[in-house]
Amino acid sequence: MADRLPGWTDGLAKAQILEFVRSVTEPGELFVPASERVAAFDHDGTLWCEKPMSPQADFLFRRWQEIARAHPGRARQQPWKAVAEGDREWLAGILDHVPGLTRGVAEAYEGITVEAFERAVRGFFGTVRHPSFGVPYTRLAYPPMRELIALLRAREFEVYICSPGGRDFARVVAEEMYGISRQHVIGSGATLEYRRGKVYRTKGVEQPIGDGPGKPVHIWARTGRKPLLAGGNADGDAAMLRTARFGLLIRHDDAGREFAYDAGAEKALSKAKERGWTVVSMQNDFKVMFDL
Amino acid sequence: MADRLPGWTDGLAKAQILEFVRSVTEPGELFVPASERVAAFDHDGTLWCEKPMSPQADFLFRRWQEIARAHPGRARQQPWKAVAEGDREWLAGILDHVPGLTRGVAEAYEGITVEAFERAVRGFFGTVRHPSFGVPYTRLAYPPMRELIALLRAREFEVYICSPGGRDFARVVAEEMYGISRQHVIGSGATLEYRRGKVYRTKGVEQPIGDGPGKPVHIWARTGRKPLLAGGNADGDAAMLRTARFGLLIRHDDAGREFAYDAGAEKALSKAKERGWTVVSMQNDFKVMFDL
Repeated sequence: MADRLPGWTDGLAKAQILEFVRSVTEPGELFVPASERVAAFDHDGTLWCEKPMSPQADFLFRRWQEIARAHPGRARQQPWKAVAEGDREWLAGILDHVPGLTRGVAEAYEGITVEAFERAVRGFFGTVRHPSFGVPYTRLAYPPMRELIALLRAREFEVYICSPGGRDFARVVAEEMYGISRQHVIGSGATLEYRRGKVYRTKGVEQPIGDGPGKPVHIWARTGRKPLLAGGNADGDAAMLRTARFGLLIRHDDAGREFAYDAGAEKALSKAKERGWTVVSMQNDFKVMFDL
Repeated sequence: MADRLPGWTDGLAKAQILEFVRSVTEPGELFVPASERVAAFDHDGTLWCEKPMSPQADFLFRRWQEIARAHPGRARQQPWKAVAEGDREWLAGILDHVPGLTRGVAEAYEGITVEAFERAVRGFFGTVRHPSFGVPYTRLAYPPMRELIALLRAREFEVYICSPGGRDFARVVAEEMYGISRQHVIGSGATLEYRRGKVYRTKGVEQPIGDGPGKPVHIWARTGRKPLLAGGNADGDAAMLRTARFGLLIRHDDAGREFAYDAGAEKALSKAKERGWTVVSMQNDFKVMFDL
C-alpha cells in the first residue's frame, strides 16, 4: 500500500495515514465495513491552492467587475465600488469571511437556473489563470492529496468534499480534478427554488453553511455518518476533524513552492496535539506541490 | 432484461419501463453515461405501504402517547390530547399533512443526538406491526418496486429515495429493505446542530421539505442532477416527475390486496397523460403486492 502515496515524503504523517487506512480496511480489531467508510475533505487550501484568493473569490470579483461595468451607477456602491477601484483592503475582508463570500456568490448569480450557473462556472475555469502560477485553477490541486483520495477510494471509502465556499461551484470541476462525482460534493449552497420544471438559484444561502460547526451537520445530513477520516487546513475545519476517527490538518508552511500562512488556522493547530490530529507540513511531507 | 421484473404483469407499464431503461443504458441516440443516471423515488405509498397511516406517523403517535403517559398535564393539550383520547379525526389531519408530520417528529425528538434518534427508530421497527397486515413495516415494501430498484442499480443508476416525511427515519431501514445506502436517502429532516463533538437534532425542520416543489430542489442539492427516472404516487411528487425524463406514477387501485385511494393524487393523475407519465395500476401491473 505504501507505494500508493508516491508524492508524500516518508515520514510520520505518511506512516500514520497508511497505518490508519490499513487498520480500518484489513481484518482486525479496528476493521470498519466498507459501507461505513466515509472520508470528508475541506476544499480550499486542503485540496487546492487558496492564495492569494480562493478560485471562488476570483470568480465573484470578476462578476462584480462585470456588473460595475454594465451598470456604472452601481460602481458607486459596495461591493462593486471595491472592484471598480481595486480596493484590495475591502476585498480582503471578503476573502477571509466565508459567509460573506458565499452570500456574495448567491446574490451575484440570483435568479438564474442551476444549469446557467454551471455554464458561468465552466466559462470561468476555461479562461482564467492563477495570478502567480499562470495556469488554470484546475491545475492547482495538490498531487499528494489527489493520491490520498485515490487510495481511499481504492479502499472503498466514499470520499466527499465539504466546501464552505460553494458546493455548486466545486461540483463543476471535482470529477476532473479528483475523480469525485458531483453527488459527493457537499457544503454551502444558494437556496434553490423550483418553478415550472426548472430549478433556479435564489439570493439566499442554505443554513448552516458548510463551515465550522456546520461541517459535521452537512456531513451527517448528506451521508448519515460521521467521517472515518477528515482533512482540513483551517479553524473552520476543527469541528469536522473532531467528529472523525482520523483527523488530518494540512499546514501551509512552504513559502517557496506555495504560500506560508497559519492565519486562520491558529486554533486548529494549537488543538492538534490534544486531539490527536496528524499535522501535515506541506514543506516536509509533500514531495510534490503541484503537477505543473 | 425483461425477466428482471418478474413481479410485474406483462403490460404497457412494464414495457415502457424496460424500453426506457434499455434506451438510456444501451448504445444509441438516447444513451446516457452512467455518471448521469440518477433515479429518485418518493417513499410512502411509492415503495412501501402508507395506509392506514405512514410508518412515521405511527412512530410519532406512539411517541406522543408515551409523552402523554409520562406527563399527564400535557394530555390536556394537543397533540398529546388527541392520542390520549384516540381522537382519530384530529390525528387524520396530521396524517395528510406532510409539514405537520415532519414538524411533529422534529419536536417530539428535539435535543437528542442523531445516534439516539436512530436507536429509537430501530426500536420502533423492531417491535411494531402493521395494524391490518400484522407484520413489521419493513416487510411492506412492494416487491415490484424493489425489483425496479435492483434493475436500475444493475444498470448503473444511482437510486435515491426522496422522502417528504423523514430522511433520518427512512435511512435506518433503506439498506435492508431496498439495498439503498443511507447516503442515498434524502429529503426532509430536522435541522441539526453541532456541539462538542456531537450532532444533535433540534425542533426545527430543514427548508424546503422534500415534498412538492421541494423535491426537485432536494434532488438537485444532493446530487447536482435532475432525475433521469422518477417515481411517485401523489400530488406532492408531480414537480419531481416533471423534472425527470421518465415519470412513473403509482396508482393505489387495489382494495383487495392493499388499499384503493386516489385522494391526494388527483392532480397528478389528471396531468399524467399530458406529461407523458407512465401510470402504474397496482391492481393490474403488480403481480405481487407484498412478500409476506
